[in-house]
Amino acid sequence: MEGLFITFEGPDGAGKSTQVHLINAYLKDMGYKTLVTREPGGTPIGEKIRNLLLNCDHSEMSALTEMYLYAAARAQHVGQLIKPALQEGTIVLCDRFVDSSIAYQGFGRGLGMDLVEAVNLFALQDIEPDLTLFFNIDPEEALKRGRSRSGSPDRLESEKLEFHKKVYKGFCVLQEKYPWRVRKIDASKDVNTVFKQVLEQIECLLRCKK
Amino acid sequence: MEGLFITFEGPDGAGKSTQVHLINAYLKDMGYKTLVTREPGGTPIGEKIRNLLLNCDHSEMSALTEMYLYAAARAQHVGQLIKPALQEGTIVLCDRFVDSSIAYQGFGRGLGMDLVEAVNLFALQDIEPDLTLFFNIDPEEALKRGRSRSGSPDRLESEKLEFHKKVYKGFCVLQEKYPWRVRKIDASKDVNTVFKQVLEQIECLLRCKK
Repeated sequence: MEGLFITFEGPDGAGKSTQVHLINAYLKDMGYKTLVTREPGGTPIGEKIRNLLLNCDHSEMSALTEMYLYAAARAQHVGQLIKPALQEGTIVLCDRFVDSSIAYQGFGRGLGMDLVEAVNLFALQDIEPDLTLFFNIDPEEALKRGRSRSGSPDRLESEKLEFHKKVYKGFCVLQEKYPWRVRKIDASKDVNTVFKQVLEQIECLLRCKK
Repeated sequence: MEGLFITFEGPDGAGKSTQVHLINAYLKDMGYKTLVTREPGGTPIGEKIRNLLLNCDHSEMSALTEMYLYAAARAQHVGQLIKPALQEGTIVLCDRFVDSSIAYQGFGRGLGMDLVEAVNLFALQDIEPDLTLFFNIDPEEALKRGRSRSGSPDRLESEKLEFHKKVYKGFCVLQEKYPWRVRKIDASKDVNTVFKQVLEQIECLLRCKK
């Protein structure tokens, strides 16, 4: 693989999407070929699966179904978009990836980390992020931020604080389990301060890979 | 579990759906509580996943995505419909189940039996068919029958004969691996002769379970 695969993880409302776009503009200016994408989604089939997943009418969806749908969208995303881009030497910036499945379905829904990792193994198709930025912010604070955004909350955003606290715990466990890959970003700060931290991590990765 | 779980498997065009409805009428007449259902589908969320899966526009769908989507529909189906029905003592008649995933994605698409079984393990939620009727018919003959039915073929039915031959091989391997559960039905015969074979197997199961 010639490219770099960087994932952005953390609670809703942590400011991931803003930073993905800022860092993308920066890397493009530096002359890098980049691809911005997101999960669930990223491909036409993935976006249809996203609509199923985030639709608030689907309150009867089981935790297992949710997990398999995320894995389905991921399998399509990796095979159709991420892997070919990495093979072409692109820096792929992805808003959420497999760590979100572990945090949301494994911890939030209580399926457990091992089950979610086992099911997702084949969806990854031997791809692993070179760097994962965990946007660390108190889940209550993130929820407030998320709810002040325009648009109504989706099916997962609508979950109670208790759920989001479990998800947050999941991200913390992942950071402890994979410290060489998952780096904490203090996402409670203002946009510029967060950007500086993101940039520092990515520049460090670029230096390592040279 | 008080009920019985009977699955109907085999190539498209083998006559499964016809027999599901005939045996359902028969069992109802005998006073049994029954439930007729199908995969993919069986629940509102499952039917939406079915539409994604069988849509001929989705030619770029990868084998892995296909497998995860079937598992997602199955997880919802088992949790929301099949398991509660069995707990209430219902005889559940299901047109396709996990064996179709193994035959179609494991053998037809070439993902392998072990991978498909591993991923589906959690979707089954400790449910296993008490009896699986494998509608055994030459895949070329089944394809001809299927194509003479009204309506245009779906994304999987549209596959070439070579694919359907691999799927058929998969069903044969399953029958050899699980002979105590999977019983062959000679589906090349006329409707009444096939019905007699189906009835014989189901009556045998009812006697065993009394």
